Amino acid sequence: MIKVAVDAMGGDNAPGEIVKGVVDAVSHREDIQVLLVGKEEAVKKELSRYTYPKKQVLLIPASEVIETEEPPVNAVRRKKDSSIVVGMNLVKSGEADAFVSAGSSGAILVGGQVIVGRLKGVERPPFGALIPTEKGVSLLLDSGANVDARPSHLVQFARMGSIYMEHVIGIARPRVGIVNIGAEEEKGNALVKETFPLLKECSDINFTGSIEAREIPHGGADVIVCEAFTGNVILKLYEGTGATLISMVKKGMMGSLRSKVGALLVKPALKETLKAFDASRYGGAPLLGLKGLVVKTHGSASAREVSNSIIQCVTFKEQKINEKIRESLEAKE
Amino acid sequence: MIKVAVDAMGGDNAPGEIVKGVVDAVSHREDIQVLLVGKEEAVKKELSRYTYPKKQVLLIPASEVIETEEPPVNAVRRKKDSSIVVGMNLVKSGEADAFVSAGSSGAILVGGQVIVGRLKGVERPPFGALIPTEKGVSLLLDSGANVDARPSHLVQFARMGSIYMEHVIGIARPRVGIVNIGAEEEKGNALVKETFPLLKECSDINFTGSIEAREIPHGGADVIVCEAFTGNVILKLYEGTGATLISMVKKGMMGSLRSKVGALLVKPALKETLKAFDASRYGGAPLLGLKGLVVKTHGSASAREVSNSIIQCVTFKEQKINEKIRESLEAKE
Repeated sequence: MIKVAVDAMGGDNAPGEIVKGVVDAVSHREDIQVLLVGKEEAVKKELSRYTYPKKQVLLIPASEVIETEEPPVNAVRRKKDSSIVVGMNLVKSGEADAFVSAGSSGAILVGGQVIVGRLKGVERPPFGALIPTEKGVSLLLDSGANVDARPSHLVQFARMGSIYMEHVIGIARPRVGIVNIGAEEEKGNALVKETFPLLKECSDINFTGSIEAREIPHGGADVIVCEAFTGNVILKLYEGTGATLISMVKKGMMGSLRSKVGALLVKPALKETLKAFDASRYGGAPLLGLKGLVVKTHGSASAREVSNSIIQCVTFKEQKINEKIRESLEAKE
Repeated sequence: MIKVAVDAMGGDNAPGEIVKGVVDAVSHREDIQVLLVGKEEAVKKELSRYTYPKKQVLLIPASEVIETEEPPVNAVRRKKDSSIVVGMNLVKSGEADAFVSAGSSGAILVGGQVIVGRLKGVERPPFGALIPTEKGVSLLLDSGANVDARPSHLVQFARMGSIYMEHVIGIARPRVGIVNIGAEEEKGNALVKETFPLLKECSDINFTGSIEAREIPHGGADVIVCEAFTGNVILKLYEGTGATLISMVKKGMMGSLRSKVGALLVKPALKETLKAFDASRYGGAPLLGLKGLVVKTHGSASAREVSNSIIQCVTFKEQKINEKIRESLEAKE
């Protein structure tokens, strides 16, 4: 039985979509118990809407909520009874194997490092986001934790990302690319130029060189390494461009009777195609390199994404990803 | 009569598509004369395929070609008779008002600064790329010239970009946004945090704050400011995601007979929609802040993009953009 603490109060659609996602996860998987952390009244009310295996959901009261706008360091220090702090403490004490939250990225990042703690040897835990591609899925990291990261951090991201893709997603010898603005080694900014030769030296990762942003949707690398400013820009633009294009295509098809009829006919096929390009089916972004598992889902996460994020924790735990990360980094010291 | 020098040898499709684009431009516009720079034999052969107003195309021989892989500083210094160097010299001497090339970005950047020269007060000339959005078009700069740029450079990009959008594209008081990973002022990397307050102080630009990458396709700002690493990643990902999604949608619709029939019906509407999202109709990226006009088009530029890039030079010249940039920067000294 895997125990997953879930932040019932985080994100734009809390607690409704979160609770719905939790119910969905435990209804599909007997091997998961959810510790649902949040305001008792509100969470109970949401839970009462559903029938589900009661023993698989435990309500853990937390009276406070950390808002997205709050400065994270202060918020984590002061709001001891917030759903994020309570959830992180469950992981720290070993009562939970993982914590899933759609709440403040900053608070999750701070709480993950301060409460759960970094694995020995990890300099900076990165957010690793799974992004859909033409060929399947790639891991983009760091997608939001460490802006202004240093070359040694990026090398660790490459190692941790490789382990994740190999053992959680099941891609043997995942190809690692560094985000760059040209294919040649001498291209790039100061950070990339310094990191490139370090990655080339790593015999334990399958470094395939620079990846230009246009190759990302084609699946040009399995592990895509960059600092978090670039990573977050990529993640947000990826989502934004997809959503805009799809809405434009839909609107365009409603323009004439002829195309409306056509739209009805192509709808099922189109839906299938776009599903393949929907990030939510892969669940959330794990904060890699911590002593426990902490997963951040989108602030706008739907029940489906919450459910997938919870289920994702099982593989992470079963494959002993943290042990593998620790061993891999220790071997390099 | 505007005189535009065009690099017949630059890009993947040279000289064929370039010459075709030149012929197209002069066939549509009586007020443009093209000085077509390149290998005499090859260019003549291509020109012989078309009927066009002969007086509007002048062949200027250049025996060398700078390849994309060549280190740009060396290439510009050594290949004095390359199409890029010859074309730049035509702008410098005043024989041409502008130079359009699909060749090596690095060589265009170096040549622009060394041969054409910067306007007084301009620290770093940025590439400004026009990108299509849901609402129309935005200018992304720097889209490729200055990685590791400094805050003062970004402020100049904002000024130059505002002038361009107002006078070339015709948007009054263009909204200027700085690319960031959150909406709040305290978000961002060191560069953004330092630049933000400087932009806020500029009374001559309409600074609207941070723009998250997901807002770019929605048209969240008219002028989108960032350093060139981020800018190039945005530009390439924008193009890559669009192309991938469109190809997936097309492929998806060919999956069943039902959707094939539907695809035939939606095709015209879809084509119209996607045309709105096609970057090539806006022409190339001007290198702003030089004593003349230098425009870089995609290495894979089609005849249509070449033609649009040439025509774009007319407005730039007529609106006296360089004079306006010079005045705007002088006023700030």
